[in-house]
This record gives sequence, C-alpha cells and structure tokens, in this order.
Amino acid sequence: MGDLKIILSEQEIPERWYNVQADMPHLPKPPLNPVTKEPVGPQDLAAIFPMDLIVQEVSRDRWIDMPEEVRDLYRLWRPSPLHRARRWEKALDTPARIYYKYEGVSPTGSHKLNTAVPQAYYNKKAGIRRLATETGAGQWGAALSQACSFFGLECTVYMVKVSYGQKIYRRSVMRLFGSEVYASPSEHTASGRAILAADPHSPGSLGIAISEAVEDAATHSDTNYSLGSVLNQVVLHQSVIGLEAKKQMEKAGDYPDVVIACCGGGSNLGGIAMPFAYDRLVEGRNIRLVAAEPLACPTLTKGLCAYDFGDVAGLTPLLWMYTLGKDFMPPGIHAGGLRYHGDSPLVSQMVADGIMEARAYGQTAVFDSAVDFARSEGIIPAPESAHAVRCAMEEAVAAREAGVSRVILFNLSGHGLLDLSAYDAYMNGNLEDYALPEEQIAAAMAKLPVVG
Amino acid sequence: MGDLKIILSEQEIPERWYNVQADMPHLPKPPLNPVTKEPVGPQDLAAIFPMDLIVQEVSRDRWIDMPEEVRDLYRLWRPSPLHRARRWEKALDTPARIYYKYEGVSPTGSHKLNTAVPQAYYNKKAGIRRLATETGAGQWGAALSQACSFFGLECTVYMVKVSYGQKIYRRSVMRLFGSEVYASPSEHTASGRAILAADPHSPGSLGIAISEAVEDAATHSDTNYSLGSVLNQVVLHQSVIGLEAKKQMEKAGDYPDVVIACCGGGSNLGGIAMPFAYDRLVEGRNIRLVAAEPLACPTLTKGLCAYDFGDVAGLTPLLWMYTLGKDFMPPGIHAGGLRYHGDSPLVSQMVADGIMEARAYGQTAVFDSAVDFARSEGIIPAPESAHAVRCAMEEAVAAREAGVSRVILFNLSGHGLLDLSAYDAYMNGNLEDYALPEEQIAAAMAKLPVVG
Repeated sequence: MGDLKIILSEQEIPERWYNVQADMPHLPKPPLNPVTKEPVGPQDLAAIFPMDLIVQEVSRDRWIDMPEEVRDLYRLWRPSPLHRARRWEKALDTPARIYYKYEGVSPTGSHKLNTAVPQAYYNKKAGIRRLATETGAGQWGAALSQACSFFGLECTVYMVKVSYGQKIYRRSVMRLFGSEVYASPSEHTASGRAILAADPHSPGSLGIAISEAVEDAATHSDTNYSLGSVLNQVVLHQSVIGLEAKKQMEKAGDYPDVVIACCGGGSNLGGIAMPFAYDRLVEGRNIRLVAAEPLACPTLTKGLCAYDFGDVAGLTPLLWMYTLGKDFMPPGIHAGGLRYHGDSPLVSQMVADGIMEARAYGQTAVFDSAVDFARSEGIIPAPESAHAVRCAMEEAVAAREAGVSRVILFNLSGHGLLDLSAYDAYMNGNLEDYALPEEQIAAAMAKLPVVG
Repeated sequence: MGDLKIILSEQEIPERWYNVQADMPHLPKPPLNPVTKEPVGPQDLAAIFPMDLIVQEVSRDRWIDMPEEVRDLYRLWRPSPLHRARRWEKALDTPARIYYKYEGVSPTGSHKLNTAVPQAYYNKKAGIRRLATETGAGQWGAALSQACSFFGLECTVYMVKVSYGQKIYRRSVMRLFGSEVYASPSEHTASGRAILAADPHSPGSLGIAISEAVEDAATHSDTNYSLGSVLNQVVLHQSVIGLEAKKQMEKAGDYPDVVIACCGGGSNLGGIAMPFAYDRLVEGRNIRLVAAEPLACPTLTKGLCAYDFGDVAGLTPLLWMYTLGKDFMPPGIHAGGLRYHGDSPLVSQMVADGIMEARAYGQTAVFDSAVDFARSEGIIPAPESAHAVRCAMEEAVAAREAGVSRVILFNLSGHGLLDLSAYDAYMNGNLEDYALPEEQIAAAMAKLPVVG
C-alpha cells in the first residue's frame, strides 16, 4: 500500500506565489472609491496598506517572489501534508480516490497564517508599528497575532462580540502572542460607538468589525489595516497551498478530477483552487473547482455579483463580488468563518464566468460528514472546513453510484479542537438548520448600492 | 541553513518497539498481588488484560514486533517531526543546539495515541467488547476513545471530577468518538460509591478513577482495563518516539548530550529516553536523561522508591516505584497529567540507579518558558510538556553561561490548544506556586504499606 501522507521537504516550499489575475479570461471590475465611485488608485489605499501589498493587489504578473524571511517562517510548519483518505474511502465504500491537503498543522490550526506572515512582513518592512484587524471566530485574529509577534509588531483585534464571548480560547491565543483584543462593536472607534448608540446590545458582525479596524488604521499614521480574506493579495499568498498540492498529487501519481474547498471570504478556496485553475485556463485540462458554502449564508449560490461595500459602515472601497448585501445578518451558525455577506472578487468572477461551481449545505449534513470523517481519519475538522468534507463525501458517493472512479482533492483548512462546543451542540441535537426565506435574501439585496 | 524540521517517511516508522527491560542493570522488583503480597502471575492479570499485553509487560526481549495493523494506524500521523528550535536558540542567545520531537501532530494532540492504538488492537484481537479506563485532564481518555473507535470497541472513561468540569472539550472529543464518560468518583462502581459516601464533594483523583476503571473491568467478563502510563507495556509502545528521534538526530548529523521529557506516570519520558538509554547502557555513550516534574507533585525528587498501590482503593498490584503515597493529594496545578502519586517502575528504577536524573519546577517558571517558546517557535505547549520546555531552557542557559556548546533534545509531548484556560490564569497572574511543606510529604509517605 502506498503512503497515507505525501510529504514534501522544506526545499520544496514554492519560491513564488501564483497570481491568477494573469490568466483569468475576465478580471473583476476594479474597486471603487466609496465616496467618488471612481476606481481606487494606490494613493487611496496607502493610508491603510504598505505599497508592496498594494502592488500585489493589482499585479497581473503570473508569479510573485516570496521574500526569504516569509519562506523561513513558512518552514516552521510548511509544507503541509497531503493525506490520502484510505480509511474514509473504505468507510464510504467508494471507488473514488480522496486526497486532502491538511492546513491544520499550522501552529494556530488553520491556513490563515499563510497570509498573516507576509502581511506582517511587508508592514514591518514599511516601518509600520501596529496592525489593526477584525476577526470572527478568531482563526484570523490568532494567526495575525502570531505573525505580528514573530516580527515585533503590535496588533489590535476587533473581535465580533458574539464570538468574543463564545470563543474565549482563541482570544487567549491572541493575548498570549501579545495582542489587544476588543469586543466589536466597541467604544474605541466612531463606527463602533455609532452602532452601540443605535443598539447597545448589538452582537456585532464581521462587517462592523471591519469598519472599526479600517477606521483605527486610517486614523493612526503608524497603524495599518490587515484583512484575512477577500483581497487579491490574500488569494495570492494562499496559493502556496495549491502549489504544494500540485507537487504532492504528482508525487502520488494522480491528478484531481475535482478540487473542493469551503468558502467564506474565499481565501482557502482560492489558495487551493487557483493553481489548478491555471491548469484549466492555460493548459486546457478538464478539472472542476467547487466552492462549498453554508445554506445560512449562501453568497455564491443565492447572491448577486455586483458592487458592494466590504463593511457595514461603508468605509471600504466598493468591491465587485457576489454579495447578499452588506446589511445581511446571517444566522448564528457554528462555522463563524463562513458568515460573511460578500466574497473574494477573484472567486466571484470565476463563479460568474462558470469556471468555478458553488454548492450550499445545511449545518446538520455538514456535521454528519465531519463526524464520519473524524472517526475514519482521526482529525476533527473545523466547522468551516467540514463544508468541504461534506462536498467531498457527496462527490465520492456520486462516484460509487455512477460506478466510476474519480479523484477528489479537498482542502481541510483547519482542525476543530477550538470549536468543540459546535460538536457538542450537534451531538446534543441542538443544531438548527436555518432555511432562509427567499424574501429575506431579496430584501437584503434590494439595499445594494446601485453602482456600475 | 539546514531544515527546521527533520522528517521521516512512513516506511521509516520503526517495525519493532524497544524494550529497555532487556538492558537494565537492575529490574524493578516484581509487582505483588495486593492481597497475598506474592509476585503476580499472568493469571492475576488475565481478568483485566489480554495475554499479548501481559506477555509484553514481563518480556525481557529487547525488540518486540509491531503488528501491521498498529503500524498502519500509526501512519495516520507518524512519523512525528523533529524540529530544530533555531528561532528559540536565537532568542535564548545560546550556543546550544536545541531539538524537539513534536508529538502534538497526533489527531488528539499528544503522544497518548501511541499506546492507545496497540492496547485497543490487542484487546480487539482477544475478543474483548469494551475497555474501561481513567483519565485526568483527558488526553489519555481522548486517545483511547479514538483508538477504540478505530477498532470498533466500546469505551468507558472515568474522568477525575474536577477535570470533568474544567476540561469540557476533551470530554467532547471522547463523546465524538463514541465513549461513555463518567465523572469520578461515580455511582457506577463500589469504589466510587464508597468515596462518595465518605465525601459527597470529593473532587476525585487519578488514584480514585483507576480504582473505578479496574473494578469495572474486573467485574465484567467482556471488558478489560487500559492504562495510559506507568506500565511497562506503555513505556514499550512509546519507544516509537525515541526510535524515530534517533533516526532523525542521525539525519541531522547530531547526537544529544541530554534528553529531556516531563514526567507524570513516565510514558512520554520513557518513550523518548529508553532508546537513548540503550546507547548509554549497551554502547557506553555519554548521554544524560532528565525527568522534569512539578514541584507540586515531586514524586521522583522527594518521594521514596518503595512498594505502593497504583490506585487509592488498593485494587491494583503493589508496584515498585517512586511514590508520595497513594493518599497524597497534589494541589490543583494545570498540568493535570503530572498529578500522580506514583511513577513508572522502569523510570523509577533508572532514577534509583542514577541512570536518569530528575528535576522539579514551579508553575510560574514553567509557563514563563512556555510562552517564550511559543513566541519563538509558534507552538503552544501543553502544560505538562511545558515542564520539559523549562528544563531545556535551563540547559541552554547553562551552556551559554559555561560558554560551551551542547546538544539538547526534548520531547514536546503535546500542544496546549485544549489547555488555554491555564495560560489565561498565567496571563492574569492567577497561578499559584505551591510550596509543599516537607511535613505534608512525610505524612503521606508515612502511610506507605510496609512491604518488601
């Protein structure tokens, strides 16, 4: 029997990130200044981002070099392993061959550190003293806190209030690495105070927390803003996942028919899928790319591809993306990282162009599959990643039913050891499967700014 | 610069465990039947252990083959990486070269699965339907639950009551893998009921939980008992850690001057140290082996090497080991896995014979070093493993002060992602450094049974 894990050496960590902007048939429409509605220029972004990252945001170069300092830190946990899920295949009685790239080996337990490290690096290099950011369930806040600690940067995290109370251990991780963490909406920003004035009991949302972090960065000259998903630079940095996975599939002597990842803001999906999108777009290979999202926040499957704000206060540029409207308040599912009204413009454009598919799943189905997976493979998936597990399971069952072989690759973007309360809710029969009324979605989208 | 991680392939997982009983100058005195005080024979143990494990317990063969089924499961996460702590060396400004074997890559996050898998395998092979065990902080209960799930065995876990309330997420892991978990002392056993009758508010202890699990196994013919530490079979199974580490040190072109691990019952220490003890005992190499234990439960540094029970009720055989007396109740330190009155007889004999050293540390010093380590290396150590981190730090500082090079290898037996409340207590200044009065230790040991 072949190996269960396909391992690369540290020398095989890619030396360049892959930038899918070089190869897309259509690029997303450009971000617009929220006031003038004109395309943003570098100067609009310079108040909150260092120039190296602004350049990456708009670059059309296919390959972008990784700085040696970033690659050195990647070596603490990368390359991540590619697992062949032989025990799960057997449990599913499927002729499919299932592979998963496991990003849970990073010290904070998810793929988020792949972009946190370069973002901290470029900001440090630009002389910035502090980064401000938002976090939902806390994966991103923990990763950026760690990256800032590596580079001696200070870090302020606005954490969605409902998660601040629930995910106390992710908060502990952020503190351990020296960050300040505020429950958002907070009294520390004008955006936060405005929300609190209107609703002192606001549970917060990612959109609100983004407003606070952007305002903090824009109003302090020594402070920049950092975002863990959505942006082109994030998808670029995360391409390290797919680049490694391609080498590993080659070592396994296999090639995927389908590549799957969960999708909230699109970073782990973009990370694994874009290097394979290259094969499809440039090499003409026949490969499917699938986004798995929650039924409770069905951005790609029910939203519109249109201009919208990234945050609730309307401080960010208008982004061309699939969105449910910035005021859409998704139900409180356990996959906190998938509760975002919008999506990566790059992922959105690929879906709009039919290059990528999207599917939505309810919580119970997702946890059913996650528990099955854990009992076969040992690893307890993060609730977000469990959406990809569900989708992979459906592909494997479809292969069995069709009596055909199929090679399935999915990204297991993180482990669930800090999300066990979600599994408790599942085991106790307390998970709700939110069926969103179509009117609620339509109402949120009716408020979209009419632009472009 | 060389690699940060020294990686082995799955083919390099050892095919045999190393049994240090073959090479010790003196073996510990034999276990005694608790009633007759005569050495126990296989028949005494057959009520709670399968014959394959009884044979391993007393074997003097130097090498014992790993069953292919066990090796196949090891491949889910093994070989574990050996890291060179370059960033921490730099932070400590030490000429020492520091390596750590990282067992936190196992799906339940610690080394415990290394023995849980073979124990479940041999019991399944013997036709057993269910295993009963005890757990403190829950690392062992989680690992055995997962191993039982792999082999389709049922599992009942008696979890020390104070941890049952605190470590709720380790409980979730056990449930996820299908185990029944009871707070101990419980109403399910006569031992538990007796303790509750005397003290309805008993917080429980490992010694009490062992009594309950042993009784459960002894009184059900389809049920056996499983123990996560102390026993010779456990030290045998854990030797996979040290055997891998030896190959990895060789690949790194280095050899340790000192090997360090934390010590509660002795399983992760025995696991990494015994294969190096072979080098010292058989090859005559000059290598130090060091046990790091808590000041709050100083078994090896303040206890006596004598016959004592493994449990509170006196149901287990009398073991020849360092002990503080079965009634010693250690303060509630966060390293729950190190709160055991006794120790592995094999480790004890090695300490008694001067082959192994022991040092004890207070909680605050341990967490100081753990946070420093995390900020350099990224990984947050389990509170137990943090004792080894502290000891390694002292060795590195001593090397700097002496102006000499030194090669330090320690076992990072698990990550602390399910122990973050301990780090919160540390960061909030709420850690107590228990200074045990000598009289308390003397009083506990005065109650030792006078045997042998």
